[in-house]
Amino acid sequence: MRYHRIPDETVRRLPIYLRGLMFSSDQGQDHISSQSLAEFVGVHSWQIRKDFSYFGDFGTPGVGYHIHKLAREIKKILRLDTIRRAALVGVGDLGSALLTYPGFATYGLDIVAAFDVNPKKVGRVVSGVEIEQAERIDTLKQRDINLAIVAVPRAAAQPTVDKLVEVGIKGVLNFAPCKVEAPKRVKVITLDIAMELARLPYYIPTGQAEKGRSVQE
Amino acid sequence: MRYHRIPDETVRRLPIYLRGLMFSSDQGQDHISSQSLAEFVGVHSWQIRKDFSYFGDFGTPGVGYHIHKLAREIKKILRLDTIRRAALVGVGDLGSALLTYPGFATYGLDIVAAFDVNPKKVGRVVSGVEIEQAERIDTLKQRDINLAIVAVPRAAAQPTVDKLVEVGIKGVLNFAPCKVEAPKRVKVITLDIAMELARLPYYIPTGQAEKGRSVQE
Repeated sequence: MRYHRIPDETVRRLPIYLRGLMFSSDQGQDHISSQSLAEFVGVHSWQIRKDFSYFGDFGTPGVGYHIHKLAREIKKILRLDTIRRAALVGVGDLGSALLTYPGFATYGLDIVAAFDVNPKKVGRVVSGVEIEQAERIDTLKQRDINLAIVAVPRAAAQPTVDKLVEVGIKGVLNFAPCKVEAPKRVKVITLDIAMELARLPYYIPTGQAEKGRSVQE
Repeated sequence: MRYHRIPDETVRRLPIYLRGLMFSSDQGQDHISSQSLAEFVGVHSWQIRKDFSYFGDFGTPGVGYHIHKLAREIKKILRLDTIRRAALVGVGDLGSALLTYPGFATYGLDIVAAFDVNPKKVGRVVSGVEIEQAERIDTLKQRDINLAIVAVPRAAAQPTVDKLVEVGIKGVLNFAPCKVEAPKRVKVITLDIAMELARLPYYIPTGQAEKGRSVQE
């Protein structure tokens, strides 16, 4: 594992660079300067050069980065160079939206299994995936799936993650609004959507809301 | 504005502390030590003390933080101490899920308007909110709304944000998988769900997937 010393913050930015590179490639570009890539993704160009220094240097002075090569390298580092199969647990409103979400395919991620505790949902097919009963999470052991997306209510989050760890899941994207515990060997990313929105009012100067013409519907 | 020098990273953690405090309060606790709060939210206790040092010290040695007082103070700093009204643009699968998402209420956030370009959706009511035609985004000027959630396809994201800026929106939570430009006075947070999932495979040692018993469905 050549790359395992890349800091988390760099790992966090790599998919952003990848997104920028894929977009530039879609627009017919072959090469991109670190300056242009920096502007596109919204970081400083020194940050890009520093991030890339962890795994070699791909730029050519005066020409910039070869988009396809760099994208391929980033995919390799992020281990996105093969299709990654993921399971979804919890097919409520958010879970359903995630099943139909087109963005995952961009990164070679494929949700191939979905589970729910509600017997009424079991057997329904959403985006080509048949919803299975939650007890069948056990079968993940025998299936080539090591990523899971958790979109269950808060109270169910920890038991769900415990179960997923037990059946050998190595990475969890948790949408339940709480921290969940897992052994160190399992990477958990919690994405609390409401919490992201909750950061916004801080940046809105006091008085702005009150200044509005305030027609209460 | 006493608090406007708080670093972004601290602002990012404040809602996490708030979530931990609200959870502890739900469990009947009055006080919490920085150590317990740290364990609960998954940071070091020195980090908590450092973060809180930006706006005063609320702990009592040997007793810890008074949960209600601290939660109230954090809400005040984040400007979550009044109900914040938000508009949603784009009522596709993800947008619909966001409209019904219960988590926003936790932070006093209320989606009170929703817009879509699809005439078939206009007039439908989702979670008590009637979907309006996209042209009516103009009316936000006259309504007491300065936060917006953008859940439109990538190509529509920038024009949507431009429009929202024009009608006086001050904060945007963007779910479209791209960076969007806005004047400095407008805070934009982009949440690319697929990109969060794309970070996970990096942490899964090579060979794990292949080692699985690999029953291909």
